[in-house]
Amino acid sequence: MDVMPTLRIALAQVNSTVGDLPGNAATVRRSARAAADSGAQLVAFPEMMLTGYPIEDLVFRDSFVAASQRALKQLAADLAADGLGEVAVVVGYVDADGPAPTSADAVPGSGRRDASALLLGGEIQATYYKHHLPNYGVFDEDRYFEPGRSLTVVRYGGVDIALTVCEDLWQAGGPFTAARRAGVGLVVNINASPYELDKDDVRLPLVRRRAAEAGATIAYVNLIGGQDELVFDGDSMIVTADGELLARAGQFTDEVLIHDLDLPAASEEPNQGEQTEAASRVEESAPEEMAITRVEIAQAPRPLHDGPARGGITERITDEAEIWSALVLGLRDYVGKNGFRSVVFGLSGGIDSAVVAAIAVDALGPERVTAVSMPSGYSSSHSKDDAADLAKRTGLDYRIEPIQPMVDAFLANLSLSGLAVENLQARVRGVILMALSNQEGHLVLTTGNKSELAVGYSTLYGDSVGGFNPLKDVPKTLVWQLARWRNAEATRLGTEPPIPENSISKPPSAELRPGQMDTDSLPDYEVLDAILAGYIDGDQGRDDLVAAGHDEQLVDKVLRMVDIAEYKRRQSAPGTKISIKAFGRDRRLPITNRFREGV
Amino acid sequence: MDVMPTLRIALAQVNSTVGDLPGNAATVRRSARAAADSGAQLVAFPEMMLTGYPIEDLVFRDSFVAASQRALKQLAADLAADGLGEVAVVVGYVDADGPAPTSADAVPGSGRRDASALLLGGEIQATYYKHHLPNYGVFDEDRYFEPGRSLTVVRYGGVDIALTVCEDLWQAGGPFTAARRAGVGLVVNINASPYELDKDDVRLPLVRRRAAEAGATIAYVNLIGGQDELVFDGDSMIVTADGELLARAGQFTDEVLIHDLDLPAASEEPNQGEQTEAASRVEESAPEEMAITRVEIAQAPRPLHDGPARGGITERITDEAEIWSALVLGLRDYVGKNGFRSVVFGLSGGIDSAVVAAIAVDALGPERVTAVSMPSGYSSSHSKDDAADLAKRTGLDYRIEPIQPMVDAFLANLSLSGLAVENLQARVRGVILMALSNQEGHLVLTTGNKSELAVGYSTLYGDSVGGFNPLKDVPKTLVWQLARWRNAEATRLGTEPPIPENSISKPPSAELRPGQMDTDSLPDYEVLDAILAGYIDGDQGRDDLVAAGHDEQLVDKVLRMVDIAEYKRRQSAPGTKISIKAFGRDRRLPITNRFREGV
Repeated sequence: MDVMPTLRIALAQVNSTVGDLPGNAATVRRSARAAADSGAQLVAFPEMMLTGYPIEDLVFRDSFVAASQRALKQLAADLAADGLGEVAVVVGYVDADGPAPTSADAVPGSGRRDASALLLGGEIQATYYKHHLPNYGVFDEDRYFEPGRSLTVVRYGGVDIALTVCEDLWQAGGPFTAARRAGVGLVVNINASPYELDKDDVRLPLVRRRAAEAGATIAYVNLIGGQDELVFDGDSMIVTADGELLARAGQFTDEVLIHDLDLPAASEEPNQGEQTEAASRVEESAPEEMAITRVEIAQAPRPLHDGPARGGITERITDEAEIWSALVLGLRDYVGKNGFRSVVFGLSGGIDSAVVAAIAVDALGPERVTAVSMPSGYSSSHSKDDAADLAKRTGLDYRIEPIQPMVDAFLANLSLSGLAVENLQARVRGVILMALSNQEGHLVLTTGNKSELAVGYSTLYGDSVGGFNPLKDVPKTLVWQLARWRNAEATRLGTEPPIPENSISKPPSAELRPGQMDTDSLPDYEVLDAILAGYIDGDQGRDDLVAAGHDEQLVDKVLRMVDIAEYKRRQSAPGTKISIKAFGRDRRLPITNRFREGV
Repeated sequence: MDVMPTLRIALAQVNSTVGDLPGNAATVRRSARAAADSGAQLVAFPEMMLTGYPIEDLVFRDSFVAASQRALKQLAADLAADGLGEVAVVVGYVDADGPAPTSADAVPGSGRRDASALLLGGEIQATYYKHHLPNYGVFDEDRYFEPGRSLTVVRYGGVDIALTVCEDLWQAGGPFTAARRAGVGLVVNINASPYELDKDDVRLPLVRRRAAEAGATIAYVNLIGGQDELVFDGDSMIVTADGELLARAGQFTDEVLIHDLDLPAASEEPNQGEQTEAASRVEESAPEEMAITRVEIAQAPRPLHDGPARGGITERITDEAEIWSALVLGLRDYVGKNGFRSVVFGLSGGIDSAVVAAIAVDALGPERVTAVSMPSGYSSSHSKDDAADLAKRTGLDYRIEPIQPMVDAFLANLSLSGLAVENLQARVRGVILMALSNQEGHLVLTTGNKSELAVGYSTLYGDSVGGFNPLKDVPKTLVWQLARWRNAEATRLGTEPPIPENSISKPPSAELRPGQMDTDSLPDYEVLDAILAGYIDGDQGRDDLVAAGHDEQLVDKVLRMVDIAEYKRRQSAPGTKISIKAFGRDRRLPITNRFREGV
């Protein structure tokens, strides 16, 4: 322990794409090259880097798992061919240790592994299988993977380095306890940890706790980018055993964080057992404990040059900036990774579509955004003015398609009244947007916020049409807050605020009948959002909500609206998760459900 | 073991509704009364009888779990008040053994239990917690429940009876091994086992195997009824330790199967341990084994009268009859349990909507079924004739709404061509159906079959609109097969075949442009369905499919169509699962997915 070997580590906080094995491998080679150019000796990439994350039921396809295994071998060879054979690369992929079971297999544990490999000198030097599998919230990993039972410890450059994956960090016991027992100097923890508001505030204390438990420095690397309803925020970091934050990457930024670590030298004799000839060796362990597999790498790290490298600690951004970045990146990646060039949506002059417009312009640039005003006889003049004002401020492609001729054609041929006429208008708008999508190839965005989605305040196949919904997980009160923040940010930066003040300040209305206001059907959004947060995010029941001070009748009304709107949510577009509990895989409720709180 | 006590057991194969705790409790009381009237001494109800199954994320709501616990106590008291205090009632419910965790809790095991209780004399005499939790296919039970660690053995009427739940039967080890160790005479296994084609052929051998393992008779009871995408088929049965099938209930039938069982008398001293005063007592067990909790019930069973009761063995129905029954019951329960009175759908004259019409009429009666012919300029005269013919055969409410005026209004205001015009027609039809739903209160049915859904051969927000899809899991070739079977069945019974022969025999066409045929875009359905079965149900890759003899280019084309249609399926209506792998929770694939087999 007298000499502290120095290791230059790079955390590659990059963007992978599910299923794009060649593209993801190319990203690894590119980033490894950049890291090597800065003298890095070890580069760590996120969980499931090669396959993207989450791969869901693709894991059940033999051909997919085999492609992942092949891609890993090829990557090791390609890195060496690139002249990067002297750089240790830690990378996530999917592995399997037996014949393929199917999802209908009744035997738990599928034989598939959420794996991490260390590549060096053109070879796979070591592998580790994730031990703790998350099976809550959006995660279904008990469905997909068999847990690893042994911690892999690699001796490299005189340092013992443990390989771990994501959830291993979030649950006590297992790998980090084994890491302490193994006496490692460094734990590399590769992640695919989705963004949620305030999650970065949880991560640092968590990494500190595990670093103390392991008695070792932790190098935590997380990916960035959008994947369907998830967006990954990066926030990679290095924390020492005594809790010091040495370096921290940005949020939602594509970057390689490079830092020199002075690490304790590995002891001569790592365990009490007999030394074997093999490079890889499993130690004895108590029945409840994880085994330890030691791998000794003979090849010395490339010599350090220049230095010392210091990654720096990137300042945290504000909550609003965090959410905005998540929504922009989530949309940009959904569009790009699904092969779209542009988006189209209805621009009503109201706050929701105005905020969607601002997000879309930030994500794609105004030349790839088409907004359509579709006025009816009930549309107020300020609606049309506000929509046109936004178009002028942002420079997006703006069109006007009045809906009355089409609405009239339906009314002339069908006997409709009341709600059926209101919904008809929304559905004619939906048909227009889908026709423009079919004709011109845009992805249609739908603009309903989380509060509306919760209470079913939308028209199925009407304003709900679209392939993606940027506001799906954003409650109405937060929509306003983001609008104000985005405009203030523009002012601060000396640019044009994108959202017309009138869209923010006017009372919300669907404008489907004369003088209609949201407050005709719904409580004030401050009140509504507080009830929804308790019921949805908090799983509170009626009595909890009443005890929290909410009006009893209002609680009953809102809960009933939420319950009976489940069928609409089941057919809703995906949208970026930003909260602790988003609609979608995060919250799985039956449509057929007669349970009524307090009845 | 000299005297064989006789126990008259009743298996209540009934229909529960998720969340309807009062209604489900009423069903228990009603069926327990019917069983008692036939002299039953023990009545077993399905898994989660009180709450319905599956309750999904309702389990995370404290108020729901508390309601289940209250309902169980109340049921015990109500049964006694009904004069049924002398009948042992085994019933499933959700229990919890600690404070409520949330779904975002990182600690595995939620403290919630999938539980079975034995009620007698107004009291809860014994409880058991399901040990094996399924977490594959449509099941997410690792998300919801903590596994039980002890087998409950109740001594009642001189017989040792083990309580088990559903999946306990499907996995080796655990409860049935413990049952042998405990020397029980009977295992009561309560189920919520969803229908799949041929599952009944698997169940009987499985029950036989476990009966042999336990060395005891198994009483297997399963529910019937539809719950969103699942339908439960009953198929309750009693099998002895040496594999004899004593009694078997029908498929999809609401019934109480009553049978007298001659069972081995319990030994005087069930275990080597010290006899305690307590009614409930946990035995020692090896670390890997389940513990055994013994409960001695002092109250003697009511005396047997009449008899012997023989449940009989109901003959299995044909595959087509099974599927038809599943589709009819699935639709009837979705409509009824969600509070609808009637359904509406587009009737094109083609085979899919004709089969949906026949299913709907069988499920609801013709007076609750409205079918709308919505001809365009491209609709053939035979389409209109065939639709009218079906209406006459079935007696459903038939209407004609030509779409051309509405289509023309859109075309006059937008510049559309090609696919955009084809989709426009389908979307105008969707708007008409939704308007009728809003105006008259019908549930809209969509009629796309599984083959179409697989390759995306449908118009989003067009022919795909609807709250439920009876054919969602039925491949096109099976749609034809069912049509022929249903007509033949009608002929056999001397009733009118519901489906016009021409709808069955003519080549399929979407009729969205002149002379359009499905075969313009798709291979023959026999070929397509074989590829889809391999890719979807079998998780086969491209090379497997080519090796199986399919044309290479065709395989590439079909796989690509399936992959890029995921976004449509994500917004599709629920429909009854009948296959080993239905679209929906059974098959979870990312939308954003660049993996292309063999590319």
